[in-house]
Amino acid sequence: MSSRPVTHEALSRFIESAFVQCGLPEADARQVAGLMADADLQGSDGHGVIRLPQYIKRIRAGGINKHPDIRIVQERAAMAVVDGDNGMGHLVVSRAVDIAIEKARSAGVAWVGTRYSNHAGPASLYARRPLQHDMLGLYFAVGNANHLPPWGGMDMLLSTNPIAAGIPTAQEPPVVLDMATTVAAYGKVKARAKRGEQMPVGWMIDRQGQPLLDPKRSGEGFLLPIGDHKGYGLALIVGLLAGTLGGAAMGREVVDFNADHVSVTNTGQAILVIDLAAFGDPAHFKQAVDTLVRDIRASARLPGVQRIWLPGEQSHEKRERYRVDGIPVATGLLDELHTLARELGIAALTVQE
Amino acid sequence: MSSRPVTHEALSRFIESAFVQCGLPEADARQVAGLMADADLQGSDGHGVIRLPQYIKRIRAGGINKHPDIRIVQERAAMAVVDGDNGMGHLVVSRAVDIAIEKARSAGVAWVGTRYSNHAGPASLYARRPLQHDMLGLYFAVGNANHLPPWGGMDMLLSTNPIAAGIPTAQEPPVVLDMATTVAAYGKVKARAKRGEQMPVGWMIDRQGQPLLDPKRSGEGFLLPIGDHKGYGLALIVGLLAGTLGGAAMGREVVDFNADHVSVTNTGQAILVIDLAAFGDPAHFKQAVDTLVRDIRASARLPGVQRIWLPGEQSHEKRERYRVDGIPVATGLLDELHTLARELGIAALTVQE
Repeated sequence: MSSRPVTHEALSRFIESAFVQCGLPEADARQVAGLMADADLQGSDGHGVIRLPQYIKRIRAGGINKHPDIRIVQERAAMAVVDGDNGMGHLVVSRAVDIAIEKARSAGVAWVGTRYSNHAGPASLYARRPLQHDMLGLYFAVGNANHLPPWGGMDMLLSTNPIAAGIPTAQEPPVVLDMATTVAAYGKVKARAKRGEQMPVGWMIDRQGQPLLDPKRSGEGFLLPIGDHKGYGLALIVGLLAGTLGGAAMGREVVDFNADHVSVTNTGQAILVIDLAAFGDPAHFKQAVDTLVRDIRASARLPGVQRIWLPGEQSHEKRERYRVDGIPVATGLLDELHTLARELGIAALTVQE
Repeated sequence: MSSRPVTHEALSRFIESAFVQCGLPEADARQVAGLMADADLQGSDGHGVIRLPQYIKRIRAGGINKHPDIRIVQERAAMAVVDGDNGMGHLVVSRAVDIAIEKARSAGVAWVGTRYSNHAGPASLYARRPLQHDMLGLYFAVGNANHLPPWGGMDMLLSTNPIAAGIPTAQEPPVVLDMATTVAAYGKVKARAKRGEQMPVGWMIDRQGQPLLDPKRSGEGFLLPIGDHKGYGLALIVGLLAGTLGGAAMGREVVDFNADHVSVTNTGQAILVIDLAAFGDPAHFKQAVDTLVRDIRASARLPGVQRIWLPGEQSHEKRERYRVDGIPVATGLLDELHTLARELGIAALTVQE
């Protein structure tokens, strides 16, 4: 698939101008745009600018509150619930993480949940955010469409509900896990369909419980959870923590935001922030993580394995590389963005020469 | 495999007298015995009385501090680190959970980690404990022997590091997840070996990366993580949270407590307790979980599936059944316990007629 490079700055500016054109306040547009460009910069391209047309469609359809009153509705020393007032998810979750960081600074640990939030991009963006404060982040979210039935079932009551964690290090790249509780995220299925490729066994099953390999038939089947019943259990717990606990949608209440651009999604996310300083000298912890990272990297390898990766290391390498070489944007997506720019009457996304 | 039924009370009394005979203070012996019998009562029979001979061996070898000074060594409003002083893990983790519950009552959320703890039995015992206070528990632990290499590797730097969660309900049995981050817990491999049965593909691989099916050859291979690299990432994060963060062993530092009965294990666990009342009316949350549980149970089923289970439901049913019919103890294990009783000079475990 051919692609063209764009700078983080150009990408961010383009997304910002699209949102401003649709009526988002400039500061909000800039914040969301920056986070979406950050997603592309780390290779989370299923959650970056590729989502812009869908977000714009929802904003124009009235499915997003452009002037939300994002506020704390429940609060104690080590927790809060933030009502996002149906604003852009990136704004709501960013606020939640900032509050959690502040509370963790005094209480040692803090949990902040969201309600009436929306899709907020890759989980790792938010789990990473406490790192610069020598804090550790754990993030849970309810996915924005149910593709997962309970184990043995066919009613799609669960989503790919992701878990993310950001762990500070000293010299090494931070350990950053970002995983759906299904074997494949739904975005990967859509990407296969777009490329006309089959899926491997283990990603999806059909209504007979047989492997479903044709991604174009994905509507006839279900995603599979990791570790069979275990992943089902994890998806359920993540949903209860990120959704039900904060008063957000879960189970039957989840709105399929791919099909419905108007209904309030009442998306829920939750962030747990832990201040390393509460546990001792942060330098000591970070050194211990570095040692473990190096032990893992130096492990003997199975035949045919070239390298052992740490969670987040591939994203880290992409971030470094794309900062220099530019972020590759698929030409098909570029065409779509040019069309969008024309529709909105904004300048086209600038591609690097 | 034939078994004989024992009552929870008889089992608990037997374990208690064994520990007292080995020099544990009576109150401590009673507490550990109660938790071990609770494990058997819920069907977690890999973590109940079956562990008694091993625990006794360690206590007699001087690998356990019989009179530990279990104390808080780090503390803030919403967190603490408990130093277990190498006491029995059940005592250390119980203390940690009690502290977390107290702190969550005021701060809303609390995290308590342990260091210099030991093997503490099934994770679910501790994740369940906050339920009676209308609180929610999340539990993480570092396993007591490394059986898992990083994804693609062969150095066993990780353990089956479990995650457990206890979620309160109104009328329904609580939702209780308790899962190793590997496809099979190591205890299941040992059980297959004992029964002379093969393992299914997907539990273990050998040093060529090929499926290992003979559980008697388990020493030549490695457990597989759930969801491939995802389970590896989860095991790593759980270990960092339960071990490294609290100053407990992780990676190369983990002592194989099956092979070594003397070295201080410096086992780490962590509990996160969330007070439902901080988020709103607990009755509202519990009702929402009930609704979700019923939706899941009523889901259409794949061909051949008789019933959809919620996490913790099978343990719940066993608990109800074993309370009436007695806890089944395998005759082989009973023989072992009779031998142990003779060695210790205590009364044998009473079997129901």
